[in-house]
This record gives sequence, C-alpha cells and structure tokens, in this order.
Amino acid sequence: MGVDDLNNLFLRSALTEENPFISTDEVFLWLEERKSLVEVNVEKIVFEKLTEWSFHKENNNLSHQTGGFFSIDGVKVATNVGEVRSWEQPIINQPEVGVLGIITKKINGILYFLLQAKVEPGNIDFVQLAPTLQATASNYNRLHKGMRPLFLNYFLKPKRGTVLLNQLQSEQGARFLKKRNRNMIVFTEDDISGHQDFVWLTLGQIKKLMKTNNLVNMDTRTVVSGIPFGRYSGEQLGLFDSFNLKTSDNTFSFDLMRSALDFDSGLFTFDEILTWFTSLKSQYTLNLEKTSIFNIKDWNIGEFEISHKKNKYFKIFAANISISNREVKSWQQPLIEPVDEGVIAFVTKKINDVLHFLVQAKLECGNYDVLEMAPTVQCITDSYDASEELPFLNYVLTADENQIKYDTYQSEEGGRFFHEQNRNLIIEADEDFDEKLPRNYIWLTLNQLNMFLKFNNYLNIQSRSLIAAIDFT
Amino acid sequence: MGVDDLNNLFLRSALTEENPFISTDEVFLWLEERKSLVEVNVEKIVFEKLTEWSFHKENNNLSHQTGGFFSIDGVKVATNVGEVRSWEQPIINQPEVGVLGIITKKINGILYFLLQAKVEPGNIDFVQLAPTLQATASNYNRLHKGMRPLFLNYFLKPKRGTVLLNQLQSEQGARFLKKRNRNMIVFTEDDISGHQDFVWLTLGQIKKLMKTNNLVNMDTRTVVSGIPFGRYSGEQLGLFDSFNLKTSDNTFSFDLMRSALDFDSGLFTFDEILTWFTSLKSQYTLNLEKTSIFNIKDWNIGEFEISHKKNKYFKIFAANISISNREVKSWQQPLIEPVDEGVIAFVTKKINDVLHFLVQAKLECGNYDVLEMAPTVQCITDSYDASEELPFLNYVLTADENQIKYDTYQSEEGGRFFHEQNRNLIIEADEDFDEKLPRNYIWLTLNQLNMFLKFNNYLNIQSRSLIAAIDFT
Repeated sequence: MGVDDLNNLFLRSALTEENPFISTDEVFLWLEERKSLVEVNVEKIVFEKLTEWSFHKENNNLSHQTGGFFSIDGVKVATNVGEVRSWEQPIINQPEVGVLGIITKKINGILYFLLQAKVEPGNIDFVQLAPTLQATASNYNRLHKGMRPLFLNYFLKPKRGTVLLNQLQSEQGARFLKKRNRNMIVFTEDDISGHQDFVWLTLGQIKKLMKTNNLVNMDTRTVVSGIPFGRYSGEQLGLFDSFNLKTSDNTFSFDLMRSALDFDSGLFTFDEILTWFTSLKSQYTLNLEKTSIFNIKDWNIGEFEISHKKNKYFKIFAANISISNREVKSWQQPLIEPVDEGVIAFVTKKINDVLHFLVQAKLECGNYDVLEMAPTVQCITDSYDASEELPFLNYVLTADENQIKYDTYQSEEGGRFFHEQNRNLIIEADEDFDEKLPRNYIWLTLNQLNMFLKFNNYLNIQSRSLIAAIDFT
Repeated sequence: MGVDDLNNLFLRSALTEENPFISTDEVFLWLEERKSLVEVNVEKIVFEKLTEWSFHKENNNLSHQTGGFFSIDGVKVATNVGEVRSWEQPIINQPEVGVLGIITKKINGILYFLLQAKVEPGNIDFVQLAPTLQATASNYNRLHKGMRPLFLNYFLKPKRGTVLLNQLQSEQGARFLKKRNRNMIVFTEDDISGHQDFVWLTLGQIKKLMKTNNLVNMDTRTVVSGIPFGRYSGEQLGLFDSFNLKTSDNTFSFDLMRSALDFDSGLFTFDEILTWFTSLKSQYTLNLEKTSIFNIKDWNIGEFEISHKKNKYFKIFAANISISNREVKSWQQPLIEPVDEGVIAFVTKKINDVLHFLVQAKLECGNYDVLEMAPTVQCITDSYDASEELPFLNYVLTADENQIKYDTYQSEEGGRFFHEQNRNLIIEADEDFDEKLPRNYIWLTLNQLNMFLKFNNYLNIQSRSLIAAIDFT
C-alpha cells in the first residue's frame, strides 16, 4: 500500500461513523454490559502488607521483587527556567519500552480498528476502550505469570508490509522518568472474531466516543493521535471534491481538516519551527540526580502513602486489587493518585485562512530531551492560585460557550494512575485574543504537528490526547 | 529570505570555488603563515602536577576546580546487542551545550563563510580551519578568565531573521556522555574585516579544502554537514538548467547533487525509514550507570595516564600546554589520545537511478537516544582483528581505486582530543556488492539524510563528517 493510499484510508475511516457491525450507540450498551460482567475492588493497604513490592534499602526505592514492572525513585531536579528552579519529587522509573498497538482491517473499503474493553484498577468506571494490545516488556515476558497477552505477535513479529504506524512516544514527563512506549498500528487480513472483549470500530466512531468523558483510554488516544492524513497543497485542497470524501456542514470541523491536510500554509516554515525549538532546547537546562526515596525533600513516607508535605501534586499508595476477568485475578501494587484534576487546552486561531494551534515548549523533569511541545495550557487545578500568571489559563477558563469546540474529561492510564482525569479543551480564539506570545509559544498547523509526531519525543502526551480527539465531521 | 532562496544560495556557494578575495591555493599559503606565527608546546606531565584539575574523591572523577569545562567520569554500560554486552570505561562528561557557529555574508550574489585559523593543542599541525565561533558555556562565561570570544553575540543574541541554520547535534557517542552542540549559521550585512585570523570562503572552497588531510576541523565539518540544498521532484530535476547552475562533467559529483536534491526517488519512503529506525530503537537497550573513576574495570590510573589494561581504545593524559596566540597563553588540562586511528566509510550505490548511501543504525554508550545513524563502516583499526566479521569493512578496505570517491584523513576536535584522526572514505559499490544487509542497515538518499539532519540526534558525528565533505563539482 502506497503512502497516499494509506493516508486516504485513514482519512476515509475518520470521516466514517457508519458501522454495519456495531453502531456508536451500541458501543455504549456493549461497554455497559462489559462493565456489568466484572467486579473490581481496589483497597488501600499499608505499604508493609504489599507482598511482592517493598521499600528497597539498597536501591533506595519502592520496587518489585523481580526488579521488573516499575519502581518509585526519588529525583532532585534543577533547571534554569520557571519560578521554581529546583525541587525533589518521587518519579516512576520504568526503563522498558512498552507496546501500545492497534490491529486494523479493511472491510468494504473502510479501515476498522480493533479495540478492547479493558479493565484497569485505576480507571474511573473500571472499563475503558483500550488498544488491541497494551503491554510492557515485564507484562509480555509474563513476570506476573499471567496469560500471554492476545495478539502479541502481530506487533512483536509483524509480517512484512503490515506496519502502518510505528512511533516512540513519551508518557507524562512530570510523573515518569524518560518513559516511552512504542505506538503501533498494524494491518491484517486475518479473520479475527469471537473475542468477546474486542470490537471493530471506524476511526470516526472512536473520535465520537472521545466526546464522552473517560471512555477511550489514554493508550488508545496516544496511538490515534499519530495517524497521518496526508499532505496537500492549498491548490489541491481547492479541488476538494476530487478526494471523493463527504465534506462537513460544520465550519470548524472543516477548518480542522484543512489544517490537517494543508502542508504549505503554515505561518512559519518547518525550518523556522525547528530553529525556534532548538534555540529553546539549547538554552533551557535540566539536570536530574537520583536521590533516596527515604529522603525526598518536602515529601513524607507514611504508613499508607507517599505524599507531599503540603498535600500537593500526587500521592502514591499501596493497593490490594482484585478483578474478575483480568489475566491475574488479584494482585498488589502501588498506584499514583492525583491530589486534584488538571486542565489541558489548545487555543486555535485562523491565520492566513488556515487554523493554527498555539503550542507551548514545556520543560518537565522526566522529559527525554528537556522540552516537548505541550498544549497552550497544561496545569493541575490546585496550582491555579499560584499560577494566576500562567499564560492563557484565564483566557481558556473564561472562554465563551461558542468558542469552546471540545470539552471532555479524559483519563490517564489506569494501570498505574488511580482516577486521574484532565479536562480536555479546544478553544477558538476570538478577536480579543492577545497576539503577544511568550517566547516559548508558537502557532502551528495540524499538518505541521503531525510531521513532528512522526519523530520521537516532540509532542507530549497531553498535546497528543487533544489531537487524538480532533474530529473532522 | 524564503527557504527556496536560502537553499539556492547555499547550493550556489557550494558550486562556486572562485573567490576574488582569496583563492583556494592562497588559503594554503595563508594557513602556513598562521602556523609559522604560533608556537605550541604540549608536554605530558604527571596528574599530580595539574594545577586546576584533580582527581576528586567525592565525585569520583577527574574534574576542574570550578566544576566547569568537562570531567572524566567512569560508566558501566549494559546493552542487549553486539558481541560485548557489558563493559566499563572512562567517558567525557560535559553537560553544557556549546555553540559552533559560522557567520555568512552575501557578496555579489554568492554566500561566503567566515572561518578562522584556530590553534588547538590536540590538532595535528596545530592550526586548522574552525568555525567563526566555537565556544562552550564555560568558555564564553570565561571560567578561564581569557578574552571574551569574538563574534559571540551574533550567535547568542542573533538579530531577527539572521539565523540560517540552528541544529543540536551530537559529539562522539563512544567518548562523550550525551554531549551536544548547537550548530549555527547566521547571516550578516555588517562589514567584518581586519581580523587577521579570519577568512571569507565559499562553500565550494571549504569542500575543496576538505580533500586535504586534517585541514578543516571537526567543528566546521559538523556545521557544514547540516546545510540544506532544497528539495526538487525528479521531474523538476529533469529541467536542471532552470536552476541556472553549472552542472558538472564529473558523473559521480552530478549523482551526488541529484541525490541531495531529489526528494521523491528514495528506495524507501520517509515513513518506512522512521519505522525501521523506531523498531530498532524500541528493541535495543542501553543502560548506563556511573561508577567511580578509581574503580573502572579493565582500566588503570597511572602516574601519567588513564589507560586500558590491554592498551586498547584510548588514553587520557595530563598536559601542560602553551600557545602563543590563544586567549589564554598557557594552561593545563587532560587530553584524550587514541591508541590507533579509525576508519569511517559510506558505501554508495545507484538505485532507481539515484545514488543511495548505506546507513547503519549504531549504538554507542554516550548516545543521547540509544541509536544514531552512522556510516556503513565505523571502527578503530586496532579492533580490525577482533572484527573480521564487521559488516562491509573488508569490502571498503579492498575497494578498487576507481570505486574510491573520497579518501582523506580528518581530525577530531583538538580542544580535547590529541592527534586523533580517522580515514574518511566514500566508496561506490560495484556489481559484486552483496545486496543482503544486516537488519540495522538501510539505503538512504542524501536528500533523506538531510531531512534527518534537521532533527536532533539522528546522524552521528562520523556520518556528518563524511556528508560535509560531499562535493558537487
């Protein structure tokens, strides 16, 4: 399959909500049914009662007895930007590359995506729509002696020519130490059916489902965010009918599609954007040093949880988990719980007739390479007071109804995070929007964002979550 | 200046050797004169006699009293590829981003580059052609209390619109711990003259000078390697006259230019190359742990040098240096001296009428992100015996005269490396070339390599050295 064919196939699926196998409304019912069939229990226990996990005196961290899965380490952070320039915190250290993979199949000319109703202990409502496969190396090497994950070999040993997408993308830089996952989409002609937890959906349906709170999980969203739709010059786009795609009545949706496809109408050239980003990367410093978890400044280890002395940011607690239909029925592990919810928002604006997204170069301590491209606004709400000066936060939170183009709550990954959700917003700027930008902000088209997505570690997971939700219909 | 104009300006300069101010022959004479005006003395001394440097018991390294410049640390390396999967070694730790910058100016429609005859203690012949500015942060913050480097503000505070190139690029991954420099080219209309150590050269001249051994220094070569020449479809290239450029009589040179400019004739698409690279990055592991320099396995600290027990790889020695026309007249520092010279080589081959370069995904312990794209062959000669199995080494070393398109010795940077040189080779494959490639090898066009160069940490310094030397005339 040529690149153009592939891009068109993705685009066509994104514009298709009709699904003869299961309608979007039926997906809700099916998910409710899946939920009714599982029982989940998450009980906070004292750290001492964790069986396979413990505070490790020699490594100075909280870790699994096999050395696998993840550990909670302490880090000292020093940087030369921001109001707070040095601090210490616990961080999730998981030096393996996980696989987040979706199998796709072409049926009657439309590409369908195989998602699963997956139970995770930290999920709000327990069941969310996950990729076909989400597995860490510890996971598929079966450190926990569970079943080998289904469909693993489609991703670990893909047949030649079946890999449609393959990107290394980051997880949350404020929580993870340089963690990355391999985001994959593979193509198959195999007959895959009869798996009761799995469902074939069009990309259009997945994007519709993202309009509901906490239904499509983070791992699905990051894979979907990387899907390319092709590159067309403004001239080609004038002849839009030639794509043989239905165009939308919704002006903003059409603007989004144009921004995704048009490669030559950015306010800045690709080289100019790289120069901007490189300049900041050269000037911002980020130094990390490991420190003992027993001795993290401003953090306490209690009987039940590791927490900040002012009860800010997040807590880590020991959990006893039992789930009826998961690979392992019951186990114990640490979970990370936010103290408050967050907000992430892209401000968009038409510039030279093409919609642009206001991107922020943001430093987070666990970033693989100092800075990543983040949404216009990204913060946790309990820091609102301290960050009245946070650029564009007030603008976003006080936007008029008609400027708000997308507004849902979306969850972080429920395998390690407990009930963590962020408000996801896409806002269209009005006439009053202040044109003056801090130097770490820049306007990009969706097509340009998509080009950066192809490379590793350019867009952070928060910006990818918002991009995944973008719907052209 | 638009991107196309800029690319054409670079290309025109690359195709121009005529320079009314100084001919290429005169550059040789001028350099001889510069050499005659300096006196350099490098004397090996015992470590104990280093005044501002010492073995630091608390940090377990060899470091400068200010904590600036660089330190020599010990690392333990573990990986899951290659014959040797774990080892320890000394490594240069310099967690600052240096600036390597060239000022350019347009004179009668041709772009000229301002290079300087720079004296470095480790240089073979002491004087080589360096960028306008090469400075570490320690350097321009004047830790050594020398003069503020000339032209610094052109790069630290460039005027709007004057930055033509701005890339973060790596140094040697086998020697440096995640070291990067900012490679910059800026444009000026200022009158810069009267600096006796500086000279204005066309890009064509610089490439001609790279045909002489050890004349153009590593820092100049890495900046030059990143210069883009534009993107043209095969169809546009058919109308080559429209570029108003002289074409070459030399078929291989013309093939090189076509490979640099043609963006749609690669054997693999850009997405396929990214998928190949991402797959390898996901599967190769690289774990580094600091260890005490006093306790590096297989390495000794002697009175005069740190060396491998079998006298392999490299040595670190203490040097007393005096130079007559440098910022600081005399000082002491550690220098790194190779045990033997190395060889780096690109094998090239016409595929679908366009010249391709055989690129290797290579893991080196100090790499910022596990793997970088390296030349077809990259090794040090004293490891020849051990690496008879090294792919393509034998092919490269036994190539026929008429296959050898480029063959010179080029130096590593003389500020930290002492008399280190590599044989740089570009070889054209013949009919007998084995098509079967190890999975970490792939064919790319120059245009594709140039696209990866725009991003950080894709091409290693060895491949950039070879690309810099590519001459279209």
